[in-house]
Amino acid sequence: MTLMSADPVTDGPGAAELLDRTRTAVDPQLRSTVETLPGSIRRVAMYHFGWQDAEGAPAAGPAGKAIRPALVLAAARALGAEEDRAVKPAAAVELAHNFTLLHDDIVDEDPTRRHRPTAWTVFGIPDALMAGDAMNALALRLLAEDPHPASAAATARLAACVIELCAGQQADCAFESRGPRDVSLDECVAMAIAKTGALLGCSCALGALYAGAGEAEVAALDAFGREAGLAFQLIDDLIGIWGDPERTGKPAGADLVARKKSLPVVAALTSGTPAADELAELYSRTALDERAVRAAADAVERAGGRDWAQEQAAERMGRAVEHLARAVPDLAAAGDLLALAEFVTRRTR
Amino acid sequence: MTLMSADPVTDGPGAAELLDRTRTAVDPQLRSTVETLPGSIRRVAMYHFGWQDAEGAPAAGPAGKAIRPALVLAAARALGAEEDRAVKPAAAVELAHNFTLLHDDIVDEDPTRRHRPTAWTVFGIPDALMAGDAMNALALRLLAEDPHPASAAATARLAACVIELCAGQQADCAFESRGPRDVSLDECVAMAIAKTGALLGCSCALGALYAGAGEAEVAALDAFGREAGLAFQLIDDLIGIWGDPERTGKPAGADLVARKKSLPVVAALTSGTPAADELAELYSRTALDERAVRAAADAVERAGGRDWAQEQAAERMGRAVEHLARAVPDLAAAGDLLALAEFVTRRTR
Repeated sequence: MTLMSADPVTDGPGAAELLDRTRTAVDPQLRSTVETLPGSIRRVAMYHFGWQDAEGAPAAGPAGKAIRPALVLAAARALGAEEDRAVKPAAAVELAHNFTLLHDDIVDEDPTRRHRPTAWTVFGIPDALMAGDAMNALALRLLAEDPHPASAAATARLAACVIELCAGQQADCAFESRGPRDVSLDECVAMAIAKTGALLGCSCALGALYAGAGEAEVAALDAFGREAGLAFQLIDDLIGIWGDPERTGKPAGADLVARKKSLPVVAALTSGTPAADELAELYSRTALDERAVRAAADAVERAGGRDWAQEQAAERMGRAVEHLARAVPDLAAAGDLLALAEFVTRRTR
Repeated sequence: MTLMSADPVTDGPGAAELLDRTRTAVDPQLRSTVETLPGSIRRVAMYHFGWQDAEGAPAAGPAGKAIRPALVLAAARALGAEEDRAVKPAAAVELAHNFTLLHDDIVDEDPTRRHRPTAWTVFGIPDALMAGDAMNALALRLLAEDPHPASAAATARLAACVIELCAGQQADCAFESRGPRDVSLDECVAMAIAKTGALLGCSCALGALYAGAGEAEVAALDAFGREAGLAFQLIDDLIGIWGDPERTGKPAGADLVARKKSLPVVAALTSGTPAADELAELYSRTALDERAVRAAADAVERAGGRDWAQEQAAERMGRAVEHLARAVPDLAAAGDLLALAEFVTRRTR
């Protein structure tokens, strides 16, 4: 696996096509579901998804990558279902994901999302908060109202996943106010699994449930998505330090500037090396200039944080494939799931 | 019906007993469900419910009145079910109600709830927001995981209700930033039905669903709860203006001091009377002193807002009883529901 060296031109054409197909298959359901929201709430949701501008006029803003819905459809196919049977859970996970984005942007005070002003900056915190609450309920309503036999199990599973996501986001916020050495690597990994892995795992599990898979297969698909999700987060964290600003659209070392306790950073801080002390000193400053950011990146690398994250990502992807192989012994049938997992862990921005 | 004149000593002893019985029947389920939350989120929820203090030590803070769970159990009984069959939906509506309280307190920047500091003031906005999100999902998870045959219908119904609640809260916030004459009475009534009536209606509907009632009965119970809920809101709004500070624990005319666009106020503002002009002038000031608050209360009364609200409350209660009688012709069987409706519309604080 060649992490971080993917070519954006040839990067996962299979996955890119899958994501396009997913948008075509799922967007009508997603949109008609969002359109059932009461007017005042719908307005915020339509803006957030890029379908309307701030004044309510039709827009074609950049939608999300639809990785989670693509995993639902691919998991359903891998376990022998027609993918159009799984369009509702695919829309439901995208709704759940976007409810968390609406609330995360409020909590993190992020001004932009997908190159547009965030919903809370446009509509105010109360409206964005209520729209997120309504989308949380809407995701579960869509599943609960589906006459599909897996409806109840899928609803309960997505609700449990949302609770885990909230705990992950809560931990992420709590880490920020703790000292540079007060977060253990185990805590940090657990947070990343809850915040990122849980919904990717749930997406795969919902696809499996809708394909009528048994408990063991559903659990294996969940574990596949979780491990792939952690690999994704590790790569994302590496990009947050060493990503090319021209590709990421963010300044160099953005996560270091924000003194984020990302996975490679915590691995470095807890390494017991002299470089860990340097990094802890830099992280205890009130602000880092360009030179200090370069020194921090260098310290993470010398403390072994970069290597650890790259090795962990590869190891987690290996585990993901093992889980997948247990549920879908014919790896040809699992090809799309593998392509998506490769895509999310090889992405360059 | 003698509104506002109830004696706190003899006020609804039947209802008070019902509420006590409800707490005994529902609290163990509510608590064991909350205890399934991940630690960091559970801490906030346990504090919010008054079961723990800010440090996590056991506490016996004042719990809510449990009106919504009591309606679930009473509706189930009225339609012939054993009430212990409906304990899960009773706990679910209380979870949903409390999730909205957690978020409303953030949005309204309220410092106290049930005589204790609000969760966001103790744990910070991110933790309180995430705890609310998790409790929203937990309410629906509890229903979705229940093997009861009404599980799916109840889950979908509560999810739809949560969406309506969010729209109601959103409208309430939006009204605040509009001019004294820019909110119509119809809008204000619709907001109150969404914000207060919807969950009381849903509580009754869930009890009926769990009793195996048919669609028409479920709809009638929902309509009963909604009308009773609007009556409750009208009385609450009257108390917000003319309530006895010694009984309410709030300063005289608290809603006028906050220049809230409550139902009697909007009825007065839209009355086309000279008193409406006086009230609009007072409401356009930046602050109201004690004398101005008394003048505003007087203007609401002379503009007919007080009479309108009292008549509306009585009319809505009449409609509520009609809906109930359609679903439960034997009004003896509906006695507890009537006692609860009387209780909420006669309460003095």
